[in-house]
Amino acid sequence: MKIGVLGTGMLGETIASKLVELGHDVCMGSRSATNEKGAAWVSRAGARARSGTFADAAAFGEIVFNCTNGEATLEALRAAGTANLDGKVVVDVANRLDFSSGAPLSLARDGDSLAEEVQRTFPAARVVKALNTMNCRIMVNPGLVPGDHDVFLSGNDAAAKAKVRGLLREFGWVDRNILDLGDITTARGAESIMPLWLKVWGALGNVPFNLKWVH
Amino acid sequence: MKIGVLGTGMLGETIASKLVELGHDVCMGSRSATNEKGAAWVSRAGARARSGTFADAAAFGEIVFNCTNGEATLEALRAAGTANLDGKVVVDVANRLDFSSGAPLSLARDGDSLAEEVQRTFPAARVVKALNTMNCRIMVNPGLVPGDHDVFLSGNDAAAKAKVRGLLREFGWVDRNILDLGDITTARGAESIMPLWLKVWGALGNVPFNLKWVH
Repeated sequence: MKIGVLGTGMLGETIASKLVELGHDVCMGSRSATNEKGAAWVSRAGARARSGTFADAAAFGEIVFNCTNGEATLEALRAAGTANLDGKVVVDVANRLDFSSGAPLSLARDGDSLAEEVQRTFPAARVVKALNTMNCRIMVNPGLVPGDHDVFLSGNDAAAKAKVRGLLREFGWVDRNILDLGDITTARGAESIMPLWLKVWGALGNVPFNLKWVH
Repeated sequence: MKIGVLGTGMLGETIASKLVELGHDVCMGSRSATNEKGAAWVSRAGARARSGTFADAAAFGEIVFNCTNGEATLEALRAAGTANLDGKVVVDVANRLDFSSGAPLSLARDGDSLAEEVQRTFPAARVVKALNTMNCRIMVNPGLVPGDHDVFLSGNDAAAKAKVRGLLREFGWVDRNILDLGDITTARGAESIMPLWLKVWGALGNVPFNLKWVH
């Protein structure tokens, strides 16, 4: 599949590298077509990898991963261009975090979510919130955490969620651990996990961990 | 032990009944000394149960459980009286929820928490946030959910947290599933779970469930 990945940070690179490893063709997008991190990634990732602007990446992909910082997401998607996102599955992996005070502070807002804001701003895009509740190494390699643990889907378009579920399976997720929370408003739940995640990270230390809803 | 339970709703009654069952002496407090739900509970719960005002319950208990609605908590604790809370372990089980729009809406605030507000307002109380992340039946009977799942502690006073941990053990929790997140500011994490909890409740339906951080 042809996939666009917006963002050249650790998250974007982790997702993009895994997708290439799985045999997909990936275009990594950033603000500038000559972004050094994008070019360096292409040189490491090989023939299936290319880089360009946000618009290049969005135009290239049938599916577009938003791996930008949540605070920069809307600007990045506007740069990607409405026409390049129309009808596309947009997988929103971002969290709104503010690092200005040193320790990361979640900026989740009750009664709204970044994913909903993206869906409202780009109504013809098929936004699916997924994967934002864990460290990016675990997103693409769930076996790093032993046993069962969960990943969430939120979105209005069932076919779009099915496509994302398919990619999650390729990443190593099994169906019983892929929890479809419902429509895009349920992204409020997934986005609200960050304050607890940060405290648990503090309590457990630097081990791979993820949450599971036990029932 | 002598324990005060503030609140006569389902949460307060569940906690108070379990404590009586375990052999503790419990005073259930509410706005009025003649509260009918309090009196009815006493008639069911037997000789170790009594009821009274918030102040009666707080004065009675060595440990005081805040089982009021989070929106009403500060008012209830002011009615309980600063002097009756000084030096006491106050177990804050409350969540701020707004039901005015029909569906419950979490009112967790980033950069603050109800537990911190309680601690600031009653600086001589020893506030411990605990148990607010699950249905009250599971709080006092963790075996309702199969296998391992977590309960969290947040608080500034290690001895107070140790006392609460002891009560959690009496409720059936085992140490490996009691996760001490740290000081009272970590209650921001525990209180932020509610939006996701509500969505998971919607997705899983009416089964006993709780979260676990798998690592």
